Amino acid sequence: MTPLDAPKAVRSRAVIERVSPEIDAGLFPVKRIVGEEVVVEADVFVDGHDQVRCLLLHRPAGTTTWAEVPMVPLGNDRWQASFHVAALGRHQYTLHAWADRFLTWRHDLGRRKEAIDILIALQIGTAMIDDAADRAADDDRNRLKNWGDELRAVPSPEAGQAMALDETLAALMAAHSERHFVTEYERVLEVVVEPERSRFSAWYELFPRSCLVGDADHGSFAGVMEQLPYIASMGFDVLYLPPIHPIGRTFRKGANNRLAASADDPGSPWAIGAAEGGHCDILPALGSQEDFRRLVVGARTAGLEIAMDIAFQCSPDHPYVTEHPEWFRHRPDGSIQYAENPPKKYQDIYPLDFESDDSNALWLELKRVVDFWIDEGIRIFRVDNPHTKPFPFWAWLIGSIKARHPDAIFLAEAFTRPKVMHRLAKVGFSQSYTYFTWRNTKQELTAYFTELARHDSREYFRPNLWPNTPDILPEFLQYGGRPAFMLRVALAATLGANYGIYGPAFELMEHEARDPGGEEYLDSEKYQVRQWDTNRRDSLRDYIARLNRIRRENPALQSDWSLQFHAIDNPMMLCFSKIAGDNTLIMVANLDPHNVQAGWIDLPLAELGVPGNSPYQAHDLLSGARFLWQGARSYVSLDPAASPMHILRLRRRLRSERDFDYFL
Amino acid sequence: MTPLDAPKAVRSRAVIERVSPEIDAGLFPVKRIVGEEVVVEADVFVDGHDQVRCLLLHRPAGTTTWAEVPMVPLGNDRWQASFHVAALGRHQYTLHAWADRFLTWRHDLGRRKEAIDILIALQIGTAMIDDAADRAADDDRNRLKNWGDELRAVPSPEAGQAMALDETLAALMAAHSERHFVTEYERVLEVVVEPERSRFSAWYELFPRSCLVGDADHGSFAGVMEQLPYIASMGFDVLYLPPIHPIGRTFRKGANNRLAASADDPGSPWAIGAAEGGHCDILPALGSQEDFRRLVVGARTAGLEIAMDIAFQCSPDHPYVTEHPEWFRHRPDGSIQYAENPPKKYQDIYPLDFESDDSNALWLELKRVVDFWIDEGIRIFRVDNPHTKPFPFWAWLIGSIKARHPDAIFLAEAFTRPKVMHRLAKVGFSQSYTYFTWRNTKQELTAYFTELARHDSREYFRPNLWPNTPDILPEFLQYGGRPAFMLRVALAATLGANYGIYGPAFELMEHEARDPGGEEYLDSEKYQVRQWDTNRRDSLRDYIARLNRIRRENPALQSDWSLQFHAIDNPMMLCFSKIAGDNTLIMVANLDPHNVQAGWIDLPLAELGVPGNSPYQAHDLLSGARFLWQGARSYVSLDPAASPMHILRLRRRLRSERDFDYFL
Repeated sequence: MTPLDAPKAVRSRAVIERVSPEIDAGLFPVKRIVGEEVVVEADVFVDGHDQVRCLLLHRPAGTTTWAEVPMVPLGNDRWQASFHVAALGRHQYTLHAWADRFLTWRHDLGRRKEAIDILIALQIGTAMIDDAADRAADDDRNRLKNWGDELRAVPSPEAGQAMALDETLAALMAAHSERHFVTEYERVLEVVVEPERSRFSAWYELFPRSCLVGDADHGSFAGVMEQLPYIASMGFDVLYLPPIHPIGRTFRKGANNRLAASADDPGSPWAIGAAEGGHCDILPALGSQEDFRRLVVGARTAGLEIAMDIAFQCSPDHPYVTEHPEWFRHRPDGSIQYAENPPKKYQDIYPLDFESDDSNALWLELKRVVDFWIDEGIRIFRVDNPHTKPFPFWAWLIGSIKARHPDAIFLAEAFTRPKVMHRLAKVGFSQSYTYFTWRNTKQELTAYFTELARHDSREYFRPNLWPNTPDILPEFLQYGGRPAFMLRVALAATLGANYGIYGPAFELMEHEARDPGGEEYLDSEKYQVRQWDTNRRDSLRDYIARLNRIRRENPALQSDWSLQFHAIDNPMMLCFSKIAGDNTLIMVANLDPHNVQAGWIDLPLAELGVPGNSPYQAHDLLSGARFLWQGARSYVSLDPAASPMHILRLRRRLRSERDFDYFL
Repeated sequence: MTPLDAPKAVRSRAVIERVSPEIDAGLFPVKRIVGEEVVVEADVFVDGHDQVRCLLLHRPAGTTTWAEVPMVPLGNDRWQASFHVAALGRHQYTLHAWADRFLTWRHDLGRRKEAIDILIALQIGTAMIDDAADRAADDDRNRLKNWGDELRAVPSPEAGQAMALDETLAALMAAHSERHFVTEYERVLEVVVEPERSRFSAWYELFPRSCLVGDADHGSFAGVMEQLPYIASMGFDVLYLPPIHPIGRTFRKGANNRLAASADDPGSPWAIGAAEGGHCDILPALGSQEDFRRLVVGARTAGLEIAMDIAFQCSPDHPYVTEHPEWFRHRPDGSIQYAENPPKKYQDIYPLDFESDDSNALWLELKRVVDFWIDEGIRIFRVDNPHTKPFPFWAWLIGSIKARHPDAIFLAEAFTRPKVMHRLAKVGFSQSYTYFTWRNTKQELTAYFTELARHDSREYFRPNLWPNTPDILPEFLQYGGRPAFMLRVALAATLGANYGIYGPAFELMEHEARDPGGEEYLDSEKYQVRQWDTNRRDSLRDYIARLNRIRRENPALQSDWSLQFHAIDNPMMLCFSKIAGDNTLIMVANLDPHNVQAGWIDLPLAELGVPGNSPYQAHDLLSGARFLWQGARSYVSLDPAASPMHILRLRRRLRSERDFDYFL
């Protein structure tokens, strides 16, 4: 606010501040999916004791007409209103407020006691009603005119007072309110509206190279096609493929990340680019572009959306290296700088130089890559290491893509520092990898997921939980046996509306690490073809299928915000709930994969919608068992060998003698 | 962030976010006094693993050259630096950050192991050093050239590595850093730097009408002059006078707010304006403009600054009413609308209409009033009911005045809703009345003052604590007797660096209310002249003088931010501390004015700078008593009849046998 000597007196007296949701003073949009509600709150007030009116305005971005929703006071000058977002894309909202003369007049009128004061007030009021009639049209105009005439004809001040306080008149006047000196909130805020899968999805990561057909020694899209029924039967809806592009030969890594590859070694799919092409090309061994198209369609038919891997880095054999040497950093000897994090060196990878003088062309080319796969029907992208590329690049790339294709979903594979992960989510990623992979104890899980589900960051940061990835076989899975796998996938599937596993390694409980103390898989698929026997009797396939069916049947598991942790008097056990409407689920987990654990849970029944004095049923959707409970405290015992987790649906109404005809 | 199809690739990769202090996205400045520190923090990071450099920039507003302070990392991508504000007025700050190539190079070099990698790195590094030499001048240029030459001549990679990691070189390179693609924080933030009295002041409110000289029946400035030694002897430094202007006659209120005044009734000084003049004129009975000037000078000589009352409202007899009828609201019969809050009416007061079509002229005229008194030497203004005038008006008025007179102080007398009080502080008021007046219990005081001293709002909201005002004789004082008065003024003087009392009513323990259950004084000075016997034996004069002396001698009581509450196992007792450097004070209060209360306090000795195992002295600055304590827990007993409060200065060092020569 600049002091002025010759003032332009501001007559807008209402103040609008502390608007929520609002990320970084409106620099970034909040996120919703189609059909969701945006609940907007703000501190709104005016000097003196005038009555304030406050409107929430909203519209699809790019349109010009605001829809208005009256805000209602919550007390302490906090106001609230909400709207639903109906379509994909960007939606805008802002606020207007003003000291409302008619509302103030009405408020005062109700308190006036002396006849003379009421009479004068009625004179003032009828003038306002006449003015409103002039602003209105048709029916409303006539109705307002009638109100004015009738008020002028009242037999007594008291009768006039009663008549003027009529709610119908108040509503009419609100509809044709004279908006004196409106304060417009200084920012127009935005919501990015995304497809439902942004909020609720189950991912399955699969290496096509291991999808062997017959006795082939390298998998193909045809092999992936054969796996579709298997994957769909487990109830996943996103099938994520690591990079499918030609793989570099120079400095190619051998099995188990050995420096020297043999002629047969297929190399890491993340070493992208070879004589056969780059990011818009397909590794010939996997199939043709036509085969890929067939796969995309075939997957969709099976209820699966293919997610592509976007890894913006190059092998030394990538066509960019010769065609655009200016997109790489050079060493004093003229050679191109390979990726390194001293003393580690990754000579099979050349990072792109985003500080290049030719970065405009680089940005456009990378967008062309995404556009290419969009044109091939891809809408979901899992972005590899986005935290090693500049944030402004992602803001531009994702913004540009989603401007034309608002149904596109970008998942940030950024296992990095918290501020960096949050910034990526702010600049546009629909979903984010999380630290879930390493959160095992009650304290860790409670603290981390309370933060994710309750903190303001939930407006833009949507977690996607992975118990394993091709890079990470967490210690808990190495040493916890079958119960550890069951626990971790059940936690992922219930703590997160979005989750994923890297299979078949997961359901087949692959648990041997390459090095003691390390998290790399032994014989990792990153560097070699693996043959998986998905028909093994001990596979977790059915367990996972049951989890995904429960997720589909229970809206409570389809979003993250309702998560609440509850007391359980055993440090090895975790109890939490999720709610959607009348769908109330209580999860109880035994975090100890080796021993039976038991404890008393303590539920806030009123919050969970359970009448405090009635018995209720807790129906374990995993085992089918039904427990009859009453009151806040209940006893739970879990044997990890059988099932480390309950997913209990609370069913509030139980049959009783009152259901017999005699009672009706 | 707008998506662009033809990108202007942003190469500034560093991110600066969550800057503190920052009020409402920089809409309002933070406040400091001359010489104070501004500690600035921000989240700063860059993609990848490059090293980031971050600078805090600051300058007096209106100047063009930024001073730079390097920020240091606190962990988790949080950075910090600080500066001191040296002069009154506005001071600006912002941040710059970038991915620093030399720092990154140096960080990597330290981790390199292979000779060939080190050699290549040294080639790259010397080129950067040569570039820096080209940017530098004089000595630095030569020193950098030498570094380059010496590095080129090293006998071995290991020697070069060691030499290149030298801290001197790092400092030189930092001084001549190549600032590639700097990210400039999107806002320039401001600090309003105010005089010390904004942070630390003791106010005494006095009605000149009761400062009688000889056997006059109406007080005068001459009478106030006679009171100056008395007020100064109590240690106050601001003498605040209710309005001194001509008082309206129409609808003048009589004693005890009676509707009909007799000819002798002087009326309320807040009913401003009469035939004798308005806001720039003086009630003739009080003296002339010349008398007032003498008072301002006399007060200053006694160490007292006069604070004027700014009450922007008019009596029906104010010259504005006839000269500028357009500044008032009119009723249908053409009469001017008096103040009202139905069913209450204040017919002796006409509020100004800030929605007037002539509001530009109104704003200018009101500023002229303040300028007038500024020209008369006044720098402190206590603003009456600022919450009944628009916020943009105050932002403009205070901003304009302080642009020319940065030593001006405005106190907001706004006993209203919290959001409104905060907004007034944000738009420019230096100090604010608080709810202290009605906070009596341990729980109330702890919650409220923790909020005031710890919440972000402390950056702009400076509390000024009043145990009484001419309008408010709180119940606690009506029924608590002498101990209640002692307690409340001692709490005000220690919980608040700024506080004030309305006297002599306070020190003479005036405690009769006009109506049972009400808070108005019986025979209030607002409506009549009072004769006070300030020499009464039971006056609290000496007690208050002691409090103010303690405040002056103890820096801990001169600011609010260090306030901390401590455990005491008696709900009728309160324990809190304030610290400044090695000045540590522990206040213990008995909140019960009727009974002796005792309890065990529990102090965090490490935080208070007391070595845990040593005995220490707690010296009660009020009573002079000294207690020898050891350990965190100590017993305190307070008899309200003697003194309801300890102000204990902790003295850490005690003499012991080690002080004898034999030990030296």
